[in-house]
Amino acid sequence: MDRDDPSSIQLTLDTVGDRWTLLILRAMFRGMFRFSEIQCDLGIAKNLLSDRLGRLVDNGVAEKVQYQERPVRFEYQLTDKGRSLSPVLIALMHWGDEWRTDGLHDKVLVHDACGSPIEHAVRCPACNTDIDSEHIQSTASTVVASGGNS
Amino acid sequence: MDRDDPSSIQLTLDTVGDRWTLLILRAMFRGMFRFSEIQCDLGIAKNLLSDRLGRLVDNGVAEKVQYQERPVRFEYQLTDKGRSLSPVLIALMHWGDEWRTDGLHDKVLVHDACGSPIEHAVRCPACNTDIDSEHIQSTASTVVASGGNS
Repeated sequence: MDRDDPSSIQLTLDTVGDRWTLLILRAMFRGMFRFSEIQCDLGIAKNLLSDRLGRLVDNGVAEKVQYQERPVRFEYQLTDKGRSLSPVLIALMHWGDEWRTDGLHDKVLVHDACGSPIEHAVRCPACNTDIDSEHIQSTASTVVASGGNS
Repeated sequence: MDRDDPSSIQLTLDTVGDRWTLLILRAMFRGMFRFSEIQCDLGIAKNLLSDRLGRLVDNGVAEKVQYQERPVRFEYQLTDKGRSLSPVLIALMHWGDEWRTDGLHDKVLVHDACGSPIEHAVRCPACNTDIDSEHIQSTASTVVASGGNS
């Protein structure tokens, strides 16, 4: 990665670069959608959880969905934008597995269809090879804004 | 991902789940190793940068290396543990590219050898297919601690 790296990381951190937010997202990926479930799982203060969930909804990462009429009850569900954060969470988890648990983690992520441990890779589709950070450069994109300044 | 997800994400966030820390790591992946370079790039207060770099060294993510004798000068280099965080940063960047810049990001990450845009994937090596978060489960690992309780 060279010095011309775009600010996409910074933009992402603006939305989800908060420790509680990442842990709330982890809970939602594990199937917890209700305020009380997430609150109980994380042991987070209610006001903090309310604030973080509100921001996730405002940013389009989650949506508040009514699941019961009497009394009216809501839960929080990940949107497509939210679900597409799974590579971030998986990358964080894999690094922790490798470097923080001394290889003694008791759980492993697997493909539901076959039970094989999943891999998480950065790769070059043209060369059909995995690549590491020394072989990644940033370069000008060919994507041009329509109606941009001439 | 189910409820039995291990705590690896939390362990990772304990080490790098701080906004400044992630931005410092981004700077280091872009080739900035000296205190003044990183400080200038991020506009971070010196005391904060000193604190975060000290923690990265304490956690084995970076190391302080002397690069000049007279006067004595040091720089910070990523260790193997630090370099293996690149999937985390790339995942954060790709999400930002997709969801926060309206597709109008002016830079793209490419493979240095061929110039092709890199892909970032979660995949099943047994089925040889990319998989998304709905098809990932966590399950008991077969890794057992040596000398564990019987």
